[in-house]
Amino acid sequence: MRENYVDFENEMNELLSNKNYERIRELMEETPPADAAEYLEEQPIKTVLMLMKVLPKDIMADIFSYFESDVQENIFKNASEAEIVSILEELSTDDAADALSELPANFVRRILKYADAETRGRINSFLNYPEKSVGSIMTSEYTSLKSNMTVAEAIEYIRRVAPDKETVYTCYVLGYRRKLIGVVELKEILSCRDDLETVENLMETNIVKVYTRDDRQEAARLTKKYDINALPVVDSEEKLVGIVTVDDVVDVIEEEATKDIQQMAAIAHVETPYLKTSVFSLVKARIPWLLVLMFAGMLNGIILGRYEAAISALPIFVTFMPMLTGTGGNSGSQTTATVIRAISLDELEIRDSLKVMWKEIRVALTIGIVFGLLNFARIYFFSDDPDKIIIGVVLGISMIFTIIMAKSLGAVLPLLAKKIKLDPAVVASPMITTIVDVVSLAFYFSLAMIMLSHRL
Amino acid sequence: MRENYVDFENEMNELLSNKNYERIRELMEETPPADAAEYLEEQPIKTVLMLMKVLPKDIMADIFSYFESDVQENIFKNASEAEIVSILEELSTDDAADALSELPANFVRRILKYADAETRGRINSFLNYPEKSVGSIMTSEYTSLKSNMTVAEAIEYIRRVAPDKETVYTCYVLGYRRKLIGVVELKEILSCRDDLETVENLMETNIVKVYTRDDRQEAARLTKKYDINALPVVDSEEKLVGIVTVDDVVDVIEEEATKDIQQMAAIAHVETPYLKTSVFSLVKARIPWLLVLMFAGMLNGIILGRYEAAISALPIFVTFMPMLTGTGGNSGSQTTATVIRAISLDELEIRDSLKVMWKEIRVALTIGIVFGLLNFARIYFFSDDPDKIIIGVVLGISMIFTIIMAKSLGAVLPLLAKKIKLDPAVVASPMITTIVDVVSLAFYFSLAMIMLSHRL
Repeated sequence: MRENYVDFENEMNELLSNKNYERIRELMEETPPADAAEYLEEQPIKTVLMLMKVLPKDIMADIFSYFESDVQENIFKNASEAEIVSILEELSTDDAADALSELPANFVRRILKYADAETRGRINSFLNYPEKSVGSIMTSEYTSLKSNMTVAEAIEYIRRVAPDKETVYTCYVLGYRRKLIGVVELKEILSCRDDLETVENLMETNIVKVYTRDDRQEAARLTKKYDINALPVVDSEEKLVGIVTVDDVVDVIEEEATKDIQQMAAIAHVETPYLKTSVFSLVKARIPWLLVLMFAGMLNGIILGRYEAAISALPIFVTFMPMLTGTGGNSGSQTTATVIRAISLDELEIRDSLKVMWKEIRVALTIGIVFGLLNFARIYFFSDDPDKIIIGVVLGISMIFTIIMAKSLGAVLPLLAKKIKLDPAVVASPMITTIVDVVSLAFYFSLAMIMLSHRL
Repeated sequence: MRENYVDFENEMNELLSNKNYERIRELMEETPPADAAEYLEEQPIKTVLMLMKVLPKDIMADIFSYFESDVQENIFKNASEAEIVSILEELSTDDAADALSELPANFVRRILKYADAETRGRINSFLNYPEKSVGSIMTSEYTSLKSNMTVAEAIEYIRRVAPDKETVYTCYVLGYRRKLIGVVELKEILSCRDDLETVENLMETNIVKVYTRDDRQEAARLTKKYDINALPVVDSEEKLVGIVTVDDVVDVIEEEATKDIQQMAAIAHVETPYLKTSVFSLVKARIPWLLVLMFAGMLNGIILGRYEAAISALPIFVTFMPMLTGTGGNSGSQTTATVIRAISLDELEIRDSLKVMWKEIRVALTIGIVFGLLNFARIYFFSDDPDKIIIGVVLGISMIFTIIMAKSLGAVLPLLAKKIKLDPAVVASPMITTIVDVVSLAFYFSLAMIMLSHRL
């Protein structure tokens, strides 16, 4: 689909230099707003502000909702209050609140003063929902029906209100005091060939819904599980206040996967795209965990210090250290990553802990024995040390021990974290690798000192 | 939403033991199929097969499409051919092909012989698309319109065909020989108040589409970028052959994130949920990378062997090894994970390589200097070795070197992998950690031997 984009880019460049605004308006109307946004993000802010005046408001708002947040911010800082408000009024409430949420509070207050009371109220209530809550990603432009409407009336009503709604494909049936009493797919309404049938008889009353203060991941989980296009959001009194559409859920799913990956790599969560993140922000996101892990590594050094005699007398054991700790770390990471991902995908619950442990121990035993034997064989056949059998046994046993320990810790720690309501990803690979380092090296050198005491 | 599920579970248990099939049928009709599937997966296969006979076919097919693939397989192996075919005919083509794709080829042939020619042809063509292609996830139950239909005719037509279509919300306009010439949202059609307006004037001709053999990630990318509900799929002659709906894209996005995470943790891709994966499959997925990395670790040991003299004479340096390699590995992982994720999210292209390198070098220099100074200070203030200044300098410089090297490699290797069309995730953290181990230890001990030659 890129061939069209290049044509569009060339034509826009030419039209802009010729100031042919009429054709620009036409072209923008035909172009997917995501493409228009991509193009405008590369242009000077002056050009964007100028086009805001030339283009119809609804098209400009559409494009605006696809801008990266730093571009949105830049526009807000450079446009007049009236221009900003006219865009805000066209945006769906969640997009408007999203764009404003990054700005300083008094700046937002100043802008909202220019908006009409209804827009101000709507946006304000959205700005008040906690950051990762369902409320913060929902939109209030849903379509509601009455239960006593007939199919013909419902279709007529939907046709009238469609232009102003985010979606008309799933409709919500409201009862007394806007309580949500049913959900009906437009497809069901259209499929019904009896124009006098009532909405009440078509609607689903077994409603899958979320509450405004639920975590947005709950909305993602339900949307995936039930293949829902638009999930209703109710307040504590079961009144319908908004919907979460599947395109917002897609963003949540991606962001959560990114967060998991970042935590597995010992990075604090960064929301901005990589190329737009400053060096300072990157350092800030990376240094805390690196420091914690380095201090843990120092502790490791102190423990290793107790074995200095063994190290001097048996330097051959040092040469196997990186392989041993490396294999331990990798074995642990394999298990932790698997378990954390399974928890994120709702495939694992705390009550499965024993099953997980039992499975991981069998996997670890299998891998451990293979690796232990390989290491013993390698030393037995290739070393010329007089104690090569003992050295091989020490290394082989340490290998088995390390893999079993690494995989057990890797399984149990994320589940434990979830149990005490921590994010399982905080005990991810780097943390487990560091613990595995300490325990496996202490085991390895202790065993070496016992088995080769005659050489100390 | 779980409170309802528990009620449902209890009621079903009771109804099943009372053999009250009439009420079971009613209850299943009211329950979301995802919940019914969850319940039935826990029941003996006999119960499921018995319900297949009792429940209406469309409801059973709906539930069937939510079963895990091992349950689907189990049903196929135990039901009669006629029963299987009646389910297959009700399933959308992609779900049917999906369910069959895991079964032995001659078993599939035998079942399809019982299906009518049309169903057999549809399913067979789907089974022939490559595994990760758009063709393998698309569905052929789309709604097509003619460009000369009026709004009133289009609505009438949609109402007639809606029951058989996966979605009617996005409609596709076909020209001569089924060529895709336009896309129109049902919302646009309904919003148009002029019943005599033609579809031609409402449809979008700037079409975002994919080809059957495109990678399914391309479908995911376009769906996200353009917020599309159903993406049209065309063959090499631009004829419409199917659509990819957003719920299938959600699954692709999650599976791809899982694959990234697995590769970052040195695991081969496993598709089955963790609890259903056998110990043998887990071992098979984990052992290859562990072996490769262990052999790399052995190489590391051989290189370290060259420094045995230094190790015996200066055991204090060994105690810092885990911290040095640990910090190096973690620094590298941070960068690789960031870069790989940014590539997956289309935030980074190969042409950005220089920008990435320059950014990472500055980040690494900042972190490296902080960590180098910390380590020097720690030895200077807490060690009582007569050469503590030299030791501190060796450790500090090695730390700076290691972090810069780790972050540079972490940035450049995934981009290089992408450049030569490998999956960037194959050069993920464990691989980089192993390389960083080798290079940093060689640097560290060489520097130690040069600076402290008087003690060797």
